[in-house]
Amino acid sequence: MADFNLMRRLAHPGESKIVLFVMDGLGGLPIEPGGPTELEAAHTPNLDRLAVEGCCGLSQPIAPGVSPGSGPAHLALFGYDPLVYDVGRGVLSALGIGFDLQPDDLAARGNFCTIDEQGLITDRRAGRIPTEESERLTAKLRAGTALEGYDIFVRPVKEYRYLFVLRGPGLSEALSETDPLVVGKPSLPVRPLDDSAEAAHSATLVNEWLDQARALLADGTPANSLNLRGFAKDPGFPKFPDVFKLRAGAIAVYPMYRGVAKLVGMDVLDAGANIEEEIAALRRHWAKYDFFFVHFKYTDSRGEDGDFEAKVKEIEKVDALLPRIRDLNPNVLIVTGDHSTPALLKSHSWHPVPTILWSPTALPDNARTFGERACVTGALGIFPAADLMPLALGHAQRLNRYGA
Amino acid sequence: MADFNLMRRLAHPGESKIVLFVMDGLGGLPIEPGGPTELEAAHTPNLDRLAVEGCCGLSQPIAPGVSPGSGPAHLALFGYDPLVYDVGRGVLSALGIGFDLQPDDLAARGNFCTIDEQGLITDRRAGRIPTEESERLTAKLRAGTALEGYDIFVRPVKEYRYLFVLRGPGLSEALSETDPLVVGKPSLPVRPLDDSAEAAHSATLVNEWLDQARALLADGTPANSLNLRGFAKDPGFPKFPDVFKLRAGAIAVYPMYRGVAKLVGMDVLDAGANIEEEIAALRRHWAKYDFFFVHFKYTDSRGEDGDFEAKVKEIEKVDALLPRIRDLNPNVLIVTGDHSTPALLKSHSWHPVPTILWSPTALPDNARTFGERACVTGALGIFPAADLMPLALGHAQRLNRYGA
Repeated sequence: MADFNLMRRLAHPGESKIVLFVMDGLGGLPIEPGGPTELEAAHTPNLDRLAVEGCCGLSQPIAPGVSPGSGPAHLALFGYDPLVYDVGRGVLSALGIGFDLQPDDLAARGNFCTIDEQGLITDRRAGRIPTEESERLTAKLRAGTALEGYDIFVRPVKEYRYLFVLRGPGLSEALSETDPLVVGKPSLPVRPLDDSAEAAHSATLVNEWLDQARALLADGTPANSLNLRGFAKDPGFPKFPDVFKLRAGAIAVYPMYRGVAKLVGMDVLDAGANIEEEIAALRRHWAKYDFFFVHFKYTDSRGEDGDFEAKVKEIEKVDALLPRIRDLNPNVLIVTGDHSTPALLKSHSWHPVPTILWSPTALPDNARTFGERACVTGALGIFPAADLMPLALGHAQRLNRYGA
Repeated sequence: MADFNLMRRLAHPGESKIVLFVMDGLGGLPIEPGGPTELEAAHTPNLDRLAVEGCCGLSQPIAPGVSPGSGPAHLALFGYDPLVYDVGRGVLSALGIGFDLQPDDLAARGNFCTIDEQGLITDRRAGRIPTEESERLTAKLRAGTALEGYDIFVRPVKEYRYLFVLRGPGLSEALSETDPLVVGKPSLPVRPLDDSAEAAHSATLVNEWLDQARALLADGTPANSLNLRGFAKDPGFPKFPDVFKLRAGAIAVYPMYRGVAKLVGMDVLDAGANIEEEIAALRRHWAKYDFFFVHFKYTDSRGEDGDFEAKVKEIEKVDALLPRIRDLNPNVLIVTGDHSTPALLKSHSWHPVPTILWSPTALPDNARTFGERACVTGALGIFPAADLMPLALGHAQRLNRYGA
């Protein structure tokens, strides 16, 4: 992983440009034994040329065997060891819907649930109510709950999930969760997890809000109660531009990826609504930044759908647009994914992710196409995703020599 | 990297012989896209045979993306994690010119510079004065400066650079530097960086010397002042022969490499003046040591010159002499570089370094020649340089089993 002390010591400003192009969930698997993966099946003349000119390898996001969520997977690509730089669920939930989290806000993930007359939980997800129902319930909570001296934000996320944010002085994330995680038990009260006055105060506030909220929902069906999990504040990570001495711009259509980029101090740029507009944004902002993170979502989406052919088509769509990025003449162009999402598994997976690091100073290797099997033969080997940023800085000639 | 506690626990004396042959700056890049690297272009039948019989890989000296200096790069080859075993600039400067540094000496790198009438620096390198001028100035300083109870050593290094060493009781390296690193500012006084009496005393001594030295230089041109940076003492590293249980001899023509070997407790042998004489020295000392470090400089020199063809020729020259080393029947023969110096970049680079570990117990792999692309396919993979020593001990059958 990137050694931040070393990077702070060696990194220096410069004129060179780095593009980190992330095809979400890029890595895949054969849909039938012996067949090609999605990336191997795709017709990708431009990516293949990039693989020949650059060097290839397989990026491991977190640790062997571990499937990453989007937040940690992107932190790794940004050079942050995701096992050290751990982001709380509440904060990821806020990032995921583009909520403008402030440094002292306390955020939590909520679930609407169903309870019986004794207050015992009968369905932790309230029958997976649709998002529209969640929108109605969160509006009701916004209108009907209040805590003196604090702002309360309650936002729908997806289906039975919502976001709860408390804004005001002296809040702590050291709080226990209310969800007992099994049915047949009552919700738990929030308890402070340390001896600080802030944790005690925060527990009192959140419990008071839960009382108000549950009273409002009590007559509803099927959602007649709620829980809160993953209390978290902005973790205050070292800032990417300070560590790597890069003016960094993030171009992403989806809120989660904009949010993670913001969390590490990148400027979030106006990305438009699709990959063509994202690349147009890249061109528009080219002069003003040294580093660009560009995110493409749909390789992951089609993988999650289990639609092998559709994922192949998304890869081919990106391939066709690659020349527009190369025309900008970046000094370093990285094409990778944040994790694998094989259509076979319909889910994020633990498999290392095909990666090209292109630069005029790339070490030559034997990879002649861009694909999982070719990347196994590449000069990058199987490497921790968080090593990519130091490598990119090396190839961008932005690191001083270590020692004489 | 080598786990020194583990090595101390497992290493045992033996009869086997290990040769670490370092071709400085060995790794390279194609001088034109798609072409061979220096090592791939070279005709190397003997190294190719060694690659076939042994196993290959790419050695990473420091960390991904990081270009090493010669000192840290060699420490890594000797098994020392260069991020843990950090050597100060002053000590590296002393090693680089073969100064016989004593354990309590305080060393610093100096620069001659030019200042204006207000004492503001106008050229931090005094117009890069030639080494001969530096020789004249350091002689003047040696003759004209003195500190009671201390010996002062002032030696020319190269161009505007010189070495300053203070010898005597109670010296500390916790001192700030005098070079403001930009022109238009005055030199800074040396300040103690901790609260110790030694640091305060050392700062007083060095400032007094600086006053004397600047008075002597004041009327000169273009060098009429000087600065000191990188105060450092011998870091007192664990000794290589103790950690690895090896009687170790170093054979190197250039002072820097003899110096780093001495720093870790190797015996520095009479190497002669060229590679033929170095190999003769190896033969001469064969019976008396278990481990030999043999250093060849000119692959790096020609890389720094940007002369691809000349670097190829140096590689071929080594290849032709390799049988003389093999004739000695070492149990383990490692051929590697301390770092890459691609002629394309005319500089040390961050690229991992082609490596052969030859031994009758080498794991077979598919590398059929010695070159960057072949090493990518090798059984050593891409590995930290500091792993080589434990591997060498394993193949030399000098490590006890770990656990029953």
